[in-house]
Amino acid sequence: MIVQTKSVRFDSISLDGGSTVAPVDVAYQAYGVLNAARSNAILVSHAFSGDAHAAGISPETGKPGWWDNMIGPGKAFDTNKYFVLCSNVLGGCRGTTGPSSVNPATGKPYAMSFPIITIGDMVRLQKMLVEHLGIQRLLTVTGGSMGGMQALEWAVAHPEMAASAMPIATTARHSAQQIAFDEVGRQAVMADPDWAGGDYYGKSPPARGLSVARMVGHITYMSDDSMREKFGRRLRNRDEFGSDFEAEFEVESYLRYRGSQFVYRFDANSYLYITKAMDYFDLANGCASLAQALEGATARFLVISFTSDWLYPSYQSLEIVNALRSRNKDVAYCELNSNYGHDAFLVDVGEQTEMVRGFLARVAREEGIL
Amino acid sequence: MIVQTKSVRFDSISLDGGSTVAPVDVAYQAYGVLNAARSNAILVSHAFSGDAHAAGISPETGKPGWWDNMIGPGKAFDTNKYFVLCSNVLGGCRGTTGPSSVNPATGKPYAMSFPIITIGDMVRLQKMLVEHLGIQRLLTVTGGSMGGMQALEWAVAHPEMAASAMPIATTARHSAQQIAFDEVGRQAVMADPDWAGGDYYGKSPPARGLSVARMVGHITYMSDDSMREKFGRRLRNRDEFGSDFEAEFEVESYLRYRGSQFVYRFDANSYLYITKAMDYFDLANGCASLAQALEGATARFLVISFTSDWLYPSYQSLEIVNALRSRNKDVAYCELNSNYGHDAFLVDVGEQTEMVRGFLARVAREEGIL
Repeated sequence: MIVQTKSVRFDSISLDGGSTVAPVDVAYQAYGVLNAARSNAILVSHAFSGDAHAAGISPETGKPGWWDNMIGPGKAFDTNKYFVLCSNVLGGCRGTTGPSSVNPATGKPYAMSFPIITIGDMVRLQKMLVEHLGIQRLLTVTGGSMGGMQALEWAVAHPEMAASAMPIATTARHSAQQIAFDEVGRQAVMADPDWAGGDYYGKSPPARGLSVARMVGHITYMSDDSMREKFGRRLRNRDEFGSDFEAEFEVESYLRYRGSQFVYRFDANSYLYITKAMDYFDLANGCASLAQALEGATARFLVISFTSDWLYPSYQSLEIVNALRSRNKDVAYCELNSNYGHDAFLVDVGEQTEMVRGFLARVAREEGIL
Repeated sequence: MIVQTKSVRFDSISLDGGSTVAPVDVAYQAYGVLNAARSNAILVSHAFSGDAHAAGISPETGKPGWWDNMIGPGKAFDTNKYFVLCSNVLGGCRGTTGPSSVNPATGKPYAMSFPIITIGDMVRLQKMLVEHLGIQRLLTVTGGSMGGMQALEWAVAHPEMAASAMPIATTARHSAQQIAFDEVGRQAVMADPDWAGGDYYGKSPPARGLSVARMVGHITYMSDDSMREKFGRRLRNRDEFGSDFEAEFEVESYLRYRGSQFVYRFDANSYLYITKAMDYFDLANGCASLAQALEGATARFLVISFTSDWLYPSYQSLEIVNALRSRNKDVAYCELNSNYGHDAFLVDVGEQTEMVRGFLARVAREEGIL
């Protein structure tokens, strides 16, 4: 299934910080068929470094989408039944307007003059896209990691538009440790002289800094166990330890490779803006408690976490679940067994598929669309 | 108690890798009085970024040593009873010969021409120091983190010289995740153009790269809980989120500060060599099992780990304990409750003091010295 990325342009978007971006493009993909009542739509939000290519095969790269194991005919998000939508986030670098986009006022890329963005801003742009497509209510809003933050934000900011929400492997707010890991990544990028205050477009991007940032990220996405299973202490090319600082352990060469490849598909300034948006995110902001923040949510919730996810540990999902339960909200919670760490929501989708399928069927039935 | 750092020079040292460093200086401090039989000596080995200044007050900085809460009159390592010795490791940058030392053959710093070193090499140099001081047998060898690796190496490589060993918050070999974190730090250093292949002496050191490396380290030394207690999501100077990438969260400014200060006391090339030594360390190297490697050890063992230490988790201490028990070795194990993560062995020393005091008293009694 070859899938094209589409794009839509809006005149402008107003941001939580008070400024405006004009115009604003949104890149998106869609799978399945929107029914006549436009009532079978599902919005999938991507994680930090994802993009609109969630499923199917990209005509450019020939690669499957980041959640292709979850979206398609007969899969968890069954495109025989549902119309599935995924858009690149505001501030991104994969078709949606972000710091690498040209600012029409100057004719140059925004770079660091791009305004600070929030998870709320990302969701506002998604809402513009959804309404542009004539959809008044989403059957579900879902995503893992930062995608789960967007699902939570949808349920709170636009309750009338979300029949259900499935935040997966996520949190209602970043802990000090999560902020710390993000900050290390940002410092690695900004420490690279090629970053040049963000004005590297048309020149050398801060490849080494971004690579180091990505290496840190990869460690946090895996678990101690999954790294042991995948690499152990195996050496790459030799039987004996060497006498230099080449990558000798397999885990070293893996991380170096993954880090070095990241720069070809991701913009360093987007890295800064999007991690900052995650750090700022606090669903309870301005409220007395998380429970109060969720007071007005009307969605049915399915919250999923994974046992070995130490980046977004289960206790953070339980905070969401407990807050919802304290307000008598409709919430199901499942902590799934997996050794894959935070990556589990992307790679270990067997049980997750069962959970999502059953939950969706119920919501669809209650919404009267199946 | 003002303590001076002393130094001794040896003609040369032979390394596991086959090469020789000549001459070699060792910086050390000593606390308490060596008895006439020279039988009350304790060797304390420092962790990765530590130095010989383990206790007392430095005349240069006015600061207490890194284990001053454990070493002194009436403390766990009671200097009224014991003679406590701590030396800077081979490859270090705090008085002992390392990559920043001048190579007499060239008149320039070794930089990256310094040979690869191992935990075994560090211990070999410690042994030279101990014998130079006329000590034939140590009452105990101990240390946390990399210091614990040295304690283990002592017990295996020089069993006749170690009456007991206390490896704390450590491992018999680095896991893939531990290697991965070290590799990220090394890549951060080497990504800094100021690193210049290691030839930065007399010029600008790779301060930004080393700072990023240190920031990653600090996250791994703390726990999710201790970071939450210390910082939470508190902002530094403002009530509202800003519109730039200054440090806004307290945890950000803390990490930036600690990272930026590190360069004043630590050499970037030592960072590379010492982390590599830790990654190479595998007590079972060349043996069928860890149990076999510990076969010849004659020391009494006290193994300590901490509940919230996710860098050197308790399961790694249990591997050591189980291997020792399978060979009927004399071993006591204690997992101490602490929220301080890996830093616990440095800061949360109440229970640790009780454990160490009791164990040491027994060993001293059995060795007939008290």
